[in-house]
Amino acid sequence: NRPQPLPTDPKVHEWIESLDEESAKTLDWANVDVTLFGVPLSRSSISASGASENPHALRQAWKGFSTYNLDEEIDLSSLRVVDLGDVRQHVTDISICHQNIIQAMEAMRNHHPYTTPVAMGGDHSITAMLVKGWKKAHPEERIGILQLDTHFDLRSLEDHGPTNGTPIRNLIESGTIHGEDVYNIGLHGFFNARSLKEYADQAGVHYVTLKQARKKGVDKTVQEALSQLKQRVDTIYLTVDMDVLDIGAAPGAPASTPGGMQSDELFEAVRIAGQHPSVKAMDLVCLDPLRDVREATVKTGVHVMLSFLTGRIQRKG
Amino acid sequence: NRPQPLPTDPKVHEWIESLDEESAKTLDWANVDVTLFGVPLSRSSISASGASENPHALRQAWKGFSTYNLDEEIDLSSLRVVDLGDVRQHVTDISICHQNIIQAMEAMRNHHPYTTPVAMGGDHSITAMLVKGWKKAHPEERIGILQLDTHFDLRSLEDHGPTNGTPIRNLIESGTIHGEDVYNIGLHGFFNARSLKEYADQAGVHYVTLKQARKKGVDKTVQEALSQLKQRVDTIYLTVDMDVLDIGAAPGAPASTPGGMQSDELFEAVRIAGQHPSVKAMDLVCLDPLRDVREATVKTGVHVMLSFLTGRIQRKG
Amino acid sequence: NRPQPLPTDPKVHEWIESLDEESAKTLDWANVDVTLFGVPLSRSSISASGASENPHALRQAWKGFSTYNLDEEIDLSSLRVVDLGDVRQHVTDISICHQNIIQAMEAMRNHHPYTTPVAMGGDHSITAMLVKGWKKAHPEERIGILQLDTHFDLRSLEDHGPTNGTPIRNLIESGTIHGEDVYNIGLHGFFNARSLKEYADQAGVHYVTLKQARKKGVDKTVQEALSQLKQRVDTIYLTVDMDVLDIGAAPGAPASTPGGMQSDELFEAVRIAGQHPSVKAMDLVCLDPLRDVREATVKTGVHVMLSFLTGRIQRKG
Amino acid sequence: NRPQPLPTDPKVHEWIESLDEESAKTLDWANVDVTLFGVPLSRSSISASGASENPHALRQAWKGFSTYNLDEEIDLSSLRVVDLGDVRQHVTDISICHQNIIQAMEAMRNHHPYTTPVAMGGDHSITAMLVKGWKKAHPEERIGILQLDTHFDLRSLEDHGPTNGTPIRNLIESGTIHGEDVYNIGLHGFFNARSLKEYADQAGVHYVTLKQARKKGVDKTVQEALSQLKQRVDTIYLTVDMDVLDIGAAPGAPASTPGGMQSDELFEAVRIAGQHPSVKAMDLVCLDPLRDVREATVKTGVHVMLSFLTGRIQRKG
Amino acid sequence: NRPQPLPTDPKVHEWIESLDEESAKTLDWANVDVTLFGVPLSRSSISASGASENPHALRQAWKGFSTYNLDEEIDLSSLRVVDLGDVRQHVTDISICHQNIIQAMEAMRNHHPYTTPVAMGGDHSITAMLVKGWKKAHPEERIGILQLDTHFDLRSLEDHGPTNGTPIRNLIESGTIHGEDVYNIGLHGFFNARSLKEYADQAGVHYVTLKQARKKGVDKTVQEALSQLKQRVDTIYLTVDMDVLDIGAAPGAPASTPGGMQSDELFEAVRIAGQHPSVKAMDLVCLDPLRDVREATVKTGVHVMLSFLTGRIQRKG
Amino acid sequence: NRPQPLPTDPKVHEWIESLDEESAKTLDWANVDVTLFGVPLSRSSISASGASENPHALRQAWKGFSTYNLDEEIDLSSLRVVDLGDVRQHVTDISICHQNIIQAMEAMRNHHPYTTPVAMGGDHSITAMLVKGWKKAHPEERIGILQLDTHFDLRSLEDHGPTNGTPIRNLIESGTIHGEDVYNIGLHGFFNARSLKEYADQAGVHYVTLKQARKKGVDKTVQEALSQLKQRVDTIYLTVDMDVLDIGAAPGAPASTPGGMQSDELFEAVRIAGQHPSVKAMDLVCLDPLRDVREATVKTGVHVMLSFLTGRIQRKG
Ligand SMILES: [Ca+2]
Ligand SMILES: [Ca+2]
Ligand SMILES: [Ca+2]
Ligand SMILES: [Ca+2]
Ligand SMILES: [Ca+2]
Ligand SMILES: [Ca+2]
Ligand SMILES: [Ca+2]
Ligand SMILES: [Ca+2]
Ligand SMILES: [Ca+2]
Ligand SMILES: [Ca+2]
Ligand SMILES: [Ca+2]
Ligand SMILES: [Ca+2]
Repeated sequence: NRPQPLPTDPKVHEWIESLDEESAKTLDWANVDVTLFGVPLSRSSISASGASENPHALRQAWKGFSTYNLDEEIDLSSLRVVDLGDVRQHVTDISICHQNIIQAMEAMRNHHPYTTPVAMGGDHSITAMLVKGWKKAHPEERIGILQLDTHFDLRSLEDHGPTNGTPIRNLIESGTIHGEDVYNIGLHGFFNARSLKEYADQAGVHYVTLKQARKKGVDKTVQEALSQLKQRVDTIYLTVDMDVLDIGAAPGAPASTPGGMQSDELFEAVRIAGQHPSVKAMDLVCLDPLRDVREATVKTGVHVMLSFLTGRIQRKG
Repeated sequence: NRPQPLPTDPKVHEWIESLDEESAKTLDWANVDVTLFGVPLSRSSISASGASENPHALRQAWKGFSTYNLDEEIDLSSLRVVDLGDVRQHVTDISICHQNIIQAMEAMRNHHPYTTPVAMGGDHSITAMLVKGWKKAHPEERIGILQLDTHFDLRSLEDHGPTNGTPIRNLIESGTIHGEDVYNIGLHGFFNARSLKEYADQAGVHYVTLKQARKKGVDKTVQEALSQLKQRVDTIYLTVDMDVLDIGAAPGAPASTPGGMQSDELFEAVRIAGQHPSVKAMDLVCLDPLRDVREATVKTGVHVMLSFLTGRIQRKG
Repeated sequence: NRPQPLPTDPKVHEWIESLDEESAKTLDWANVDVTLFGVPLSRSSISASGASENPHALRQAWKGFSTYNLDEEIDLSSLRVVDLGDVRQHVTDISICHQNIIQAMEAMRNHHPYTTPVAMGGDHSITAMLVKGWKKAHPEERIGILQLDTHFDLRSLEDHGPTNGTPIRNLIESGTIHGEDVYNIGLHGFFNARSLKEYADQAGVHYVTLKQARKKGVDKTVQEALSQLKQRVDTIYLTVDMDVLDIGAAPGAPASTPGGMQSDELFEAVRIAGQHPSVKAMDLVCLDPLRDVREATVKTGVHVMLSFLTGRIQRKG
Repeated sequence: NRPQPLPTDPKVHEWIESLDEESAKTLDWANVDVTLFGVPLSRSSISASGASENPHALRQAWKGFSTYNLDEEIDLSSLRVVDLGDVRQHVTDISICHQNIIQAMEAMRNHHPYTTPVAMGGDHSITAMLVKGWKKAHPEERIGILQLDTHFDLRSLEDHGPTNGTPIRNLIESGTIHGEDVYNIGLHGFFNARSLKEYADQAGVHYVTLKQARKKGVDKTVQEALSQLKQRVDTIYLTVDMDVLDIGAAPGAPASTPGGMQSDELFEAVRIAGQHPSVKAMDLVCLDPLRDVREATVKTGVHVMLSFLTGRIQRKG
Repeated sequence: NRPQPLPTDPKVHEWIESLDEESAKTLDWANVDVTLFGVPLSRSSISASGASENPHALRQAWKGFSTYNLDEEIDLSSLRVVDLGDVRQHVTDISICHQNIIQAMEAMRNHHPYTTPVAMGGDHSITAMLVKGWKKAHPEERIGILQLDTHFDLRSLEDHGPTNGTPIRNLIESGTIHGEDVYNIGLHGFFNARSLKEYADQAGVHYVTLKQARKKGVDKTVQEALSQLKQRVDTIYLTVDMDVLDIGAAPGAPASTPGGMQSDELFEAVRIAGQHPSVKAMDLVCLDPLRDVREATVKTGVHVMLSFLTGRIQRKG
Repeated sequence: NRPQPLPTDPKVHEWIESLDEESAKTLDWANVDVTLFGVPLSRSSISASGASENPHALRQAWKGFSTYNLDEEIDLSSLRVVDLGDVRQHVTDISICHQNIIQAMEAMRNHHPYTTPVAMGGDHSITAMLVKGWKKAHPEERIGILQLDTHFDLRSLEDHGPTNGTPIRNLIESGTIHGEDVYNIGLHGFFNARSLKEYADQAGVHYVTLKQARKKGVDKTVQEALSQLKQRVDTIYLTVDMDVLDIGAAPGAPASTPGGMQSDELFEAVRIAGQHPSVKAMDLVCLDPLRDVREATVKTGVHVMLSFLTGRIQRKG
C-alpha cells in the first residue's frame, strides 16, 4: 500500500513513507525492512537539552539527502522504510514517558518482528527503555550493546532516577543485559568520573577509548567488538550518542567536547555495524537542534542513520 | 554577620550576600529585607526550555549593575538582601521538584516571615508551588496574583499535569486562590486558545490586554489592579513571565512573541508593584539564557528584579 | 470536503487546509474565504536574498499560533482558508517565473473569484506580477495599491529589469494602475534616491513618511489612505514589504533599517486594511528566514497575515 | 580637486571624498564643509572593546545609504564632506595615542578652521582628547558639551587613568571646560555609581534622565539644553555614546543596556543638535562591530552621522 | 605602471594591484602573471545563495594574509597579480550574465593571453561560461577539467537551465569538452542522484570519491589526475567548489556537508594543481559569506587562492 | 588548610582551591604542586581582543570537567592545585600591567619555588613578562621556550612596543633567553612575514611547521624538541597560543586560521610537555571567549590545561 511509485532519484523524504495511525494498521508489514520512530523526550536529561526537537529536525533535513550512497554505490530505496511518527510523551511525568517507550518497542517487536527499528531520540535515557521493550518481547534473547559515546552512562539510578547518564547501568542492574555484553567505543578526555570507570571494570563492561580505537582503526575496532559480541548474544543493539563527536563536528550535541570523533569515523563505524546480521535495532540520541550551528549536527544525524541503512543493505546472509 | 562593610558604590554582586547552608543558619534574619533563591526547574515546560540555567545566569550578570538607581535616586544597598542559593531539584521526578519548592517557600515563611521572598525561576510551573507554599505557611491569608504574561496559564492539569501552562488554573482549582483575585496584564496576539479565555471569564480572572493597558497607561493599569486586589486580599504575589516582553526585547524567553511589552514598560510595572505594601513576594520565570542574544534578556531579568527592589524601598507605610 | 472537523482550540496549521493539485480540483470553492499561496522567487532581488525560503518558513511557524485573537476577541477559524502551495518557479529564467505568477493570479481570479488571495513572497518583484494577473482577470477594474514599505519601489525597469526595486513603477508604466492610486506609508531615512521621490511626485504617487504617519497616528493614516483610495478605485491591493519594520524587529528582512516601524504598528495597520471591503488581496514580501534571529521575523510575518485575516472578519458589509 | 562629478543619486560612499596624505595637502579646504576622521582606539576601554574597528565598519556600511534624507527632503550631497582617514594609534602606549588625537584636532582647527570635524571613535576616552585639541587651537573659546550617554563618564582619573569612563571629568579637572557647561541626556537605570551622581551635582553638570527627557520630549529636551548652553559657551561639542541606545537597538555597543533610547529618538536628537550654529564638532563612540547582530548597530551609527549632517544643512544663519 | 614599490613584508591587499577600467587599458600586460576577477552571480543557484557577495568578501579578507608562504618558503610577491574587478551582471536576465562571463574570459584570453585567469565566483554555473569563453578564444585547444566538488554537476539543462548543478554537463553537451577529460575528486555521501552517477559513467567522466582519494592520498590522487589529463588535453581548468569541504570547515558554503574534505587537504590539492604547467586557469565557487561563521570559510577561500599561486611559482619549466 | 575533603569524583572546580589574599598567606605551600593565576591583559594586542576575559571564562568552564583522565587512567586530584586569582592590571598604562606580571612571577618563584606556575592569559605579550619574572628570580638559570603557535612572535619592539606579536623577540633582545633555545611548533600558512622567518634563522630560533611536524608525528616532534632543549637549558617554559589551532577548532582565538592544528594533536603535545621534568611553567594565551562559538574554544582551553597537568603526574623522576 505504498500510495504511488517513487520518483526517479528520490530524496530521502520522498522515499521514507510516513504513516499515520490508520495507515499503519492497514500496512502490509511483511514488506517493511526498517521502521523509524521518534522519541521526543529530553526532560530526563541531567543538563538542559532540547533533544526532544530532534525527530522533527531530522525529518525536515531529509530533503537535503539523496537515497543514493555514492561511496558504496548503493541505493537505499531498495529498502522499504516507514516512519511511524513519535512515541507519545507526557510533560510532567517522566515515568509515563519511559513506560510508553518500553511499550512502543515491545509492541513493535510483537506485531512487526521482521522490521529493524530505528529510534530517533530524545536523550540517552530512552535507550534503557527501548532495550527493555525488546527484552519484554524477546525474553529468551541475550542482548548486547554497541555504544558509541563519550560517556559510560553508568551513573547510579539512586542519584536522580533514570536520567540520560544511566541507561547502561539501568540495563545491567535490571538484569536486562550483562555488563560484559556492552562495548563502548569512543570514550575520551575528562568527561567520566573515576568511579564510573571502576564500575565498568567491575561489571565487565568492555570499552575502547577513542585514542585506542584510532591506533587500531575505528572501523576494525568496531568489527572486533561485533565479532566478540556475536559469540555471546542473540541481538546487538546499536546506540549512537551524538556527543561522541568532536564539538566542532557536533555543536548541537549538548555534551560534545573537544577531542571527540570526526564525522567520517562515525559514519564508517555505524555502516559497519549496519552490516552485521546481529545488529537488529539502532537509536540516535542527544542531538539538540536548538543549539546547532548551520544545521551541521542535524545533517550529521541524518547521515548517521543513512550510513546504518547502507550497511544493512550490504549485510550478507 | 555580614562579613565586611560594603565598598563605596557597590556592584550588585558585592551587595547581595550569598549564604551557604551553614551561614544561613547563623544569620540574624531580623535584619534581612529580601531573600532571593533560585528555582532551577524547567523540565516541566511544555516546549524545550533551559530556564533552569537562569538563576546562575542572573547571578553572573549582577556584576554589570550598580546598586544605585539613577532614575529614582535610590540606592538599593539600603536594603539587606541575601541569596539562599537554589532549591534542590530532582532530574526525573518532577513531582519531587514541585514538593521541594512548596516546602522551600513554606519553610521560608515559617522561619523568616519578615523577609520578602524573590524567586528566580525556572519555568512558570513553579509559581503554583511557591504560592501553595505560602498558603501552607499562612492558611488564613487570602492571596491575590498580579501576573505579567503573554499567556493566561490556565491550561487544564488533566492534559499534561502541572506544566508551565497551568499555574494559575492549578492555584484556582486547588482552592489556593480565587479566580477573581488574579489580575493578568500584558496578554496579546494569537497565543491563547479561545477556551482559555472562556475559562478565565468563567473563573472571574481579571485581565487587561497589552493594547488596553497601553491606552490607559501600563503604569496606571498596574496601579488600578493593585488597588482592586488590595480590597480583597491580604497578600499580593507578583509573577513576571519574561515572555510578556516583545521578542526583540527578550529573545531568550522561549515563548516571547512579536507585539509584546517593551522593557521600560515592564520595569515601571514591576517598580510600581514593588511600592505596594501588599506585594509580599515575587518571581521571575521563563528566561532561557541558552537562547539569549548578547545577554540582553538576562540583563533585562536582572533589571526587573532591581526595579522591584527599587519599588520596595519607595514603599510607604 | 474538509476531511475532518477542526479540533477545539486549533493551532493555525490545524486550521488552514493544505491542498494538493487533486484536492484543489474537487474542492467546493464557494465556501472558501481566503486562498494562500507561496511565491518562492527571490533571485530577482537586487541584493542577495533568501526570501524564496519564506513560504516554507511561514508554514512551519504556523504551529506556534492559535487561531484566536485575544486583542480583538475573534476566532479566525470562522474563516475557511486554504493553502494552494507554491507557484512553480524556474531557476534560471526569471521571466518564466514572472509569467507563472501572473497566470497564477489570473487563474485564481477567474476560477475562484470569491476568495481573497494572500500571497507569501518572495521578493517585491512579484507584486507587479500579481497585480497584473488581477488586472488580466478584471480588466475593467481600477486597482489601487496600499504599500507599507521603507522604499518607493519606483526604480526604472531599464536598469535591471523587473527587480524588487521596481514593482510600483512597473505597474504604473505598464498602465496597470495610475500613479495617484498608490499610497505608500512607512518611508523613512536615507534609503530612497532623490530621483525616485521626484518620480513619485510627478506620477502623483501618494506617500506618508513614518514620521508623518506617527504624528497623525499610523492607524489613522492607513484609514485615510483607504478612504481616499476607495473614492477612486474598485479594488485595493495591500502589499507589505517586511523591511518597513525596524531592523531590531525584522532582522530577517534583508533591507530593514534602523528607524523603521515597530511590529505592533504594522499589525494594526494591516488589520485596519483587512477591515476595508475594497481590500481584496494581499501579499507579504522580502522576508529572508536564512538571516533571521530566533525566528523573530518569521513569527512577525505570520502575525501580519493573521492580523489581516482578523481585520477581514471584522469587515462590515 | 574633487576628481569627477557625483553620479546622480549618489550613495554615501560615492559622495564622501576619501583623501590620502598627498591629496589632503593639495585640497582647496575653503570648500570643505565637514571633515570626517577615524579614531581607532579602544584599548583604553575599561571592559574589552573592539570599537577600534568601528571607523572601518562605518565606511564599509556607507554604500547602503543614499545621500537623500526623505523625511527632511534634504540632499546631503550639497555639503562637501571629506574623509581624512584614521588618526595614527600606538599599540602599547595609550598616552601616545591620546597625544596624537589631541594634536590631530589641534592641527585640523589650525589649518582648516572652517570645516566641521566629525570623529568616528573609538571609545569615549577620545572625547577628552578631541576637546583638549580644540581648546589648544582656540584657547579663548568657552566650550560646552552635549553628551548623549547612558553614563556620566565622571570616574576619577586616579583609578585607571584616562579610560572611557572618565572623559567628562578629565575635561573638567583639566580646566578645559566648566562642569556647568556639560549637558548629559539619556542616563537611566542602574549603570552609574551614586558617587558619580554626587560628583555631577557638585560640579554643576546638567543631566536629564531618559525618563525625564521623554516626559518633555527628547527633541525638546535637546533644544532646551542647546539654548541654555548657547547662553554661556562659544562652541558646543556633541558627543554620542552609542550605548545610550537600548540593547535591542544597539547590540554592538558593549555597554548598551535594556531600557535605553530608541534609534529614532537618537536620530532626532542628533539632527536637532546639527541644526544649532554653535554645535561645531561631533563624535560617535563605543560601537564595537565585532559584537554586532546583522550590522544593526553599525547601520545605526551611520544613520546618526547622517542625521547630524542633515541638521547641519538645516542650520539657519 | 605599478604606482609605487611594494612595502617590505606586504600583506596580500598591498601586493595585488586593483585596476579600474582606465588603468587596465594602459597597463603593460607583458609583466602580469595572474589576473583575478570577480563573477558576482549566484541568482542561478538552485537553492538560495549569497555567493554573489564572495568576491567582495575575499578582497576584504586579503589584509589578514601575508604574501609569504612559510610552509613552502615562497614569497608570492614575486608574481605580479592584478585584480580587474567584477564582471558586470544583470539582475533579472541570467542569460545576459552568462554571456557577459563568456565574453569576459574570451576577451581576457584574446588580449592578455600570457596571464593566468583566476575567477572568484559566484556559483558553479559560471564555470561553464568561463570555459566556453576560453574555448572561443582558443578553439583549437582541447580542455580538461579538474573539479574538486561534493557533486558531479551533471544535472540536465532541460530541468532548470544552466544552474549551478549543470556546468560540467553543459560543457560536455555543448561540445566544449569531452566527458573523459573531466576528473572530479572529492565526491562523497548521499548528495548525488544515482542517475547522475550513471550519466558520469556513460560520458566517461573520471571521478574519485574522497574516501578513495584518501586511501591513495589526496595529493597523489590529484597528481595522477593531472598526469592522465596532460596526456590528452592542452589546457587544464581547475574548478574548486567550496562545498567539497566538510561543513565544519566551510559553514559558509551553502551545500557543504558532513564527511567532506579538510581544509589542509584542499590547500595541498590546489597547490599541486598550481604546479602543473597545463593548469592555465582556476575558479573558486559557491562560497556565501552571508552564512559564514567567524569568516572561517572566507579565510579558507583566500587560502585556497594563495595555495594555487604558491603552486604556480613552484611550477617547473 | 584545605577546608574540607574533596567529594568523590570531583569536578575540576571542586578540586582546584581558590585562594584570596588572606588564605594565600596562611597556606602551607609545601604541599602545593601547581599554582594557577589569571593574567587578564589583552589591550596589548595588535588587533582587538577580549582575551582579558579568558581567565574568568576558563574558571566558569571547570565545572564541565571531571578530574579523571580516562585516556591515561589518571586522576588529577592527586595533585594539589591552587588558584591565586588574577594579576592586577591597569586600564590605560600597559607598562604597569607588564611590570605587575613580571613581579607576580618573580614573587611566586621567590616565595613558592616548589610549585609549577600555570598562567591563564591574556594575550601573548604576557609571556615575555612571565619569563622575565622567572629570570629575575632565577638569574642563574638558562631558560628555553617550547612555543605552540601559528606565529613566530618575533616582531620588532620598535614598531609598537611589547605587543602580542613580540614576546619571543623581546626575550631574545633583552638577553633573557638565547634564540637557539626557542622551539616553535605549529607554524603554517601565510601568517608570518618573510622578514620574521629571516630573523628567526639569524637568531637561531628552531621551528617546525605543522606540515613537517605531522610527517614525523606531532608527538614525536615535541619530544625531540624537549630532548634537544634539555641538553642546553635548565628550565623549559611552555607557551600555548590557542591560535595554533585550526579556526574550526578554535573560533574564539582571534587569529586562528584554516589549516591549523587539531585539538587532539594539541592535547597530546601539551601532555608530553607536561611529562618532561624540565618543563617548569606554562601559559595559555590568545583565547577570546567573547568570539567563541558554543564555548568550544574555552572548553578546549580547559582541556589543554588539564592535559598539561596529566603529563605532570606522568612525569618520571
Ligand atoms: Ca550517553
Ligand atoms: Ca554522552
Ligand atoms: Ca506563563
Ligand atoms: Ca507566558
Ligand atoms: Ca519594496
Ligand atoms: Ca523595501
Ligand atoms: Ca560614555
Ligand atoms: Ca556610556
Ligand atoms: Ca559544484
Ligand atoms: Ca558542489
Ligand atoms: Ca599566534
Ligand atoms: Ca603568539
